[in-house]
Amino acid sequence: MLIDPLYPKSFASDNHAGVHPDILEAIATANHGDAPAYGDDTWTSAFEEKAKAVFGPHAQAFPVLNGAGANMVGLALTLPRRYDAIICADSAHIATHEAGATERLLGVKLVTAPTEHGKLRPSDIESRLGGIGSPHESQPTVVSVSQVTELGTCYSPDEIAALADTAHAAGLRLHVDGARLANAAAHLGCDLRSITTDVGVDVFSFGGTKNGALAAEAVIVLDPSLAEAVPFLRRQSLQLASKMRFISAQLTALLSNDLWHRNAHHANQMAARLAAGLTDIPGTSLIHPVESNAVFAKLPHSVTEALRRRYLFHYWNEEAGSVRWMTAFDTTPEQIDDFLDDLRKAANA
Amino acid sequence: MLIDPLYPKSFASDNHAGVHPDILEAIATANHGDAPAYGDDTWTSAFEEKAKAVFGPHAQAFPVLNGAGANMVGLALTLPRRYDAIICADSAHIATHEAGATERLLGVKLVTAPTEHGKLRPSDIESRLGGIGSPHESQPTVVSVSQVTELGTCYSPDEIAALADTAHAAGLRLHVDGARLANAAAHLGCDLRSITTDVGVDVFSFGGTKNGALAAEAVIVLDPSLAEAVPFLRRQSLQLASKMRFISAQLTALLSNDLWHRNAHHANQMAARLAAGLTDIPGTSLIHPVESNAVFAKLPHSVTEALRRRYLFHYWNEEAGSVRWMTAFDTTPEQIDDFLDDLRKAANA
Amino acid sequence: MLIDPLYPKSFASDNHAGVHPDILEAIATANHGDAPAYGDDTWTSAFEEKAKAVFGPHAQAFPVLNGAGANMVGLALTLPRRYDAIICADSAHIATHEAGATERLLGVKLVTAPTEHGKLRPSDIESRLGGIGSPHESQPTVVSVSQVTELGTCYSPDEIAALADTAHAAGLRLHVDGARLANAAAHLGCDLRSITTDVGVDVFSFGGTKNGALAAEAVIVLDPSLAEAVPFLRRQSLQLASKMRFISAQLTALLSNDLWHRNAHHANQMAARLAAGLTDIPGTSLIHPVESNAVFAKLPHSVTEALRRRYLFHYWNEEAGSVRWMTAFDTTPEQIDDFLDDLRKAANA
Amino acid sequence: MLIDPLYPKSFASDNHAGVHPDILEAIATANHGDAPAYGDDTWTSAFEEKAKAVFGPHAQAFPVLNGAGANMVGLALTLPRRYDAIICADSAHIATHEAGATERLLGVKLVTAPTEHGKLRPSDIESRLGGIGSPHESQPTVVSVSQVTELGTCYSPDEIAALADTAHAAGLRLHVDGARLANAAAHLGCDLRSITTDVGVDVFSFGGTKNGALAAEAVIVLDPSLAEAVPFLRRQSLQLASKMRFISAQLTALLSNDLWHRNAHHANQMAARLAAGLTDIPGTSLIHPVESNAVFAKLPHSVTEALRRRYLFHYWNEEAGSVRWMTAFDTTPEQIDDFLDDLRKAANA
Repeated sequence: MLIDPLYPKSFASDNHAGVHPDILEAIATANHGDAPAYGDDTWTSAFEEKAKAVFGPHAQAFPVLNGAGANMVGLALTLPRRYDAIICADSAHIATHEAGATERLLGVKLVTAPTEHGKLRPSDIESRLGGIGSPHESQPTVVSVSQVTELGTCYSPDEIAALADTAHAAGLRLHVDGARLANAAAHLGCDLRSITTDVGVDVFSFGGTKNGALAAEAVIVLDPSLAEAVPFLRRQSLQLASKMRFISAQLTALLSNDLWHRNAHHANQMAARLAAGLTDIPGTSLIHPVESNAVFAKLPHSVTEALRRRYLFHYWNEEAGSVRWMTAFDTTPEQIDDFLDDLRKAANA
Repeated sequence: MLIDPLYPKSFASDNHAGVHPDILEAIATANHGDAPAYGDDTWTSAFEEKAKAVFGPHAQAFPVLNGAGANMVGLALTLPRRYDAIICADSAHIATHEAGATERLLGVKLVTAPTEHGKLRPSDIESRLGGIGSPHESQPTVVSVSQVTELGTCYSPDEIAALADTAHAAGLRLHVDGARLANAAAHLGCDLRSITTDVGVDVFSFGGTKNGALAAEAVIVLDPSLAEAVPFLRRQSLQLASKMRFISAQLTALLSNDLWHRNAHHANQMAARLAAGLTDIPGTSLIHPVESNAVFAKLPHSVTEALRRRYLFHYWNEEAGSVRWMTAFDTTPEQIDDFLDDLRKAANA
Repeated sequence: MLIDPLYPKSFASDNHAGVHPDILEAIATANHGDAPAYGDDTWTSAFEEKAKAVFGPHAQAFPVLNGAGANMVGLALTLPRRYDAIICADSAHIATHEAGATERLLGVKLVTAPTEHGKLRPSDIESRLGGIGSPHESQPTVVSVSQVTELGTCYSPDEIAALADTAHAAGLRLHVDGARLANAAAHLGCDLRSITTDVGVDVFSFGGTKNGALAAEAVIVLDPSLAEAVPFLRRQSLQLASKMRFISAQLTALLSNDLWHRNAHHANQMAARLAAGLTDIPGTSLIHPVESNAVFAKLPHSVTEALRRRYLFHYWNEEAGSVRWMTAFDTTPEQIDDFLDDLRKAANA
Repeated sequence: MLIDPLYPKSFASDNHAGVHPDILEAIATANHGDAPAYGDDTWTSAFEEKAKAVFGPHAQAFPVLNGAGANMVGLALTLPRRYDAIICADSAHIATHEAGATERLLGVKLVTAPTEHGKLRPSDIESRLGGIGSPHESQPTVVSVSQVTELGTCYSPDEIAALADTAHAAGLRLHVDGARLANAAAHLGCDLRSITTDVGVDVFSFGGTKNGALAAEAVIVLDPSLAEAVPFLRRQSLQLASKMRFISAQLTALLSNDLWHRNAHHANQMAARLAAGLTDIPGTSLIHPVESNAVFAKLPHSVTEALRRRYLFHYWNEEAGSVRWMTAFDTTPEQIDDFLDDLRKAANA
């Protein structure tokens, strides 16, 4: 990994961006006098109220420290038995990139399904319920999907609703890893509750860090019967911030003045600009539909290597010649155009 | 718990204080351009170098998100086998206030010892080694002590050295929960390495949050053979910050310009001022030596209740009539004197 | 440990005895033709019916492979949340001799209490409930007692009832480790349900192996709401016998023709004979009341060492000069008298 | 499941068979006098010696209670780090039928590969090593294969050697789930060490229960550096028999007088007879090569249903119309022929 960020702009991850000025200001504003620790403060109350305004009056919001933590706490709520299992896409972050936390911290099995463009279908759920009732098999108890998916695609509200219906009909819950939920809503042109509360989601992670926050995520519980355990599980899962006001203030700022939407929409537009620029560059092609702030492309190895000498980004699958480019709230059109220029030069070299 | 912080100053916890201005400024300064995520950034490199300067050239420093996380990651390094056990004081935070994380996340047994004033003695270790070799018993593998202890007392460098010698002679490691390590060094009048590197500690938590940071802790590994696993365990334990530069910048600020010492020394002095003021207040007495920023006192129940109507603080043991008062980096002498005045009035009422 | 059993009779453990002939015959009888595996066989059905006859119509019985397994499966039923805790005596087998299985397999905290003669009192429960509701602390959810205790003593039916009342009043369950439940009933002169079903026990381990079986234990669930999870937890906990008929046949044999009582009563009588013989041997004394098939005695170190050259038994606490002698279903009066003779000679040497 | 075994012979599982008379006799013979518990007895020593004779002088053998236990203890030895992963076939018993024990008890991830006829190839290993070194991913540490596989096929000695070479070259161990190892050796016409010790296996389960024992399995450790942890892990994993002599005696009997081979060879021959009989039955076909005591066949649904009215056996995949028939050490040629007659009638009906 590169240590010194000399690069014009990183396309490796939306985590490489800094903090939006409004978020930093919200943190500074919260630094006023004493406040009870662990969430018994007015900033956290304010966020809880804001979350109810956004996600509906039954939504209960719990700030946590990072996205992995939000997923683990949220999923734990839905997995009360020691022999439970999660159904998810085989590309799901919880299946591939949590360093085994899902298995070790939750102690449950992941039952995975191959997908097209990262999206689970209701039939994937139905075909994985055969072992229910057998004491020899883990028991599927929750379906987890990522919105935006790990491949940059989005579920429509109808698709989420269909997954929720299928899960609920089988007695399972629906969990959403919403590390980039804002990008999905911005892409779909809807508000945040249209892809969560209104379509049967039981619990989800709401991500802020990839959308301009310093470090701020939340577990949002929509099924009230699941909420009682959160304080204990959040604490035990090492996700309880002592000076929680500074997390809550970030989340409130994101949900205020449409900041979540402005940041996500901008990042999405930059990805679209990048994808559009590929059309006339020979040897390059898109691998997945571009429906968020991620562009998955295939390009010749020599081109990738030339580009990586100037830009920070990752191979998605080096052998297959695919790469992932991410944009962020602060990516500029000029940076995209410069990047495309460099890509074009490399492709034509 | 109180939601609205109307109180003149909280004496409930050093977590109720805000963020020191130098720390906030360091965060703002780090918000400049892109930086690789997960620690591959220049701010984290700078902190790693600073930690070597402070704790010695073999010290390897790993920023994490909170104190519980620092303890769990640090201890995990020392507990490689599924049947390992930790020896600690029965008042240890890891035994009483981690919501069972020690047992569930680490999967090990805590072998506890009663103590005087929270301090473990070498003989407590020796008398708990009898089951070593028996497949029916958990195998003690690490000794964990808190510096400052949960009862506000400090181990001298010699006391830590004696514990390390006893532990090492039996093939065990020594871990230190240093959530308030700065307060201990300030009390003892020594530098930070005199109670860690120089006296045989193998791995420890170095706390920043209780000493003026927003949220910044570190696992410091002094035995190089333990360090390889940290990146994996930190990630799996949900303690890896994506935008790590903002954690690292806080830690570097604390270790620069003696900020760690100034903050801790001031808080300690405020506790000493509070303790001194008790001497002429009838019915009150200290329970433990005041060696940090905590004052444990016994006072009549009616006095406690009167005081709690104006001030935020906790009973330590309500039945026994004991309370814990904490001071912070920003507690003022006037606040202490006001508090003592109110206490005096209540005691004389 | 001794490899060659040249000794006249082992006093080290009731596990050193062999198998009662009736049990071996029951196994041979069950070896007739094919039978469905995993408990769907007529021998297991017969045991289930027998258990209902003995423990009441609501009792559900599940054969398992060993005592540790019975405890872990039974306790798991009562610990549905990841942050639950068990209250037990600090001498409890689950706290001291399960090799950390309680912490690692169940993932929960043990909250232990010091006791006199191994028996927990209702006040021990009440004083350990203070952290209920605090997200920083493990939540006590079940009380576990051993009947016979690890120190050879027995709870009276009234004592069990009082513990059950206290536990239930606080919303906790009562679990009994009944590895030697038969010995307790024999000592108390009551039937098995008088110390389980009739006095508020929710779930317990019923041990056969120490009472003449080859390897046969059962989890008995008295609260029907707990039973649904057993098949899954038994399987996951590695406690499901494929050819279960051979376990069930042993258990049925024990519960038939009073075999459980005859074996246990005899072992208890042999312990009583041994204890009675100590009264006139100088330098020896009983440490705990002898209420089962265990005798805890204190004797001079030289006497112990002389005796250990001829007999197999363990120090209980070598430093304190205490030993544990166990009798079994097949210990003879002559063996006791020979042992006492040898002890008397050593004491008078 | 059927409760009353009225069926002529079960074809559902080799677990439905009873105990071979030589094994029962070995148990009865071991029931002589007292013996130290937990394996410190002469019968266990004899088995340990016998295992060295069979598997080589470095083989260390540890009796356990069942096959799931043997796998969990054996695998645990090879998974020292909390972030380790197992590479195995997606049909592996440890992936599909351990009720989540692999994830919950071991706390590790299973990285699975689709296979033809259940057999993993070296390239399946190689293509799953890409995440090694990344703290975001579980780290593959052991390859586990089943011999016989879950689909009734066998790895040749060369195939095992190639897997071992690939695993070792990447720093991984090779574990074999040998619940039916005897059937594999009988099919391959080799001795037991030709497919274990001689071809690079590090640790394996050796099954007895499916081959005529009452309940007897063993963990066999071939890499001496792995053996030290077994006593602790076996105890903690609830797999330590107190009266171990009765397990060891069974295992010794199996390894004596070629009993293991006679039983397995006979069962294999019966499966071959059954498979051969299918060739002239219209509408039936084999799905996998018949290389052990399992026959996987496809047949019309109506035929299956007709047959299931008389015989006990399982669908393998009801939707796909496939079934699994198992033979055992005591299946007779007449039973096979009767079964084929009934099948033929149903197919021609």
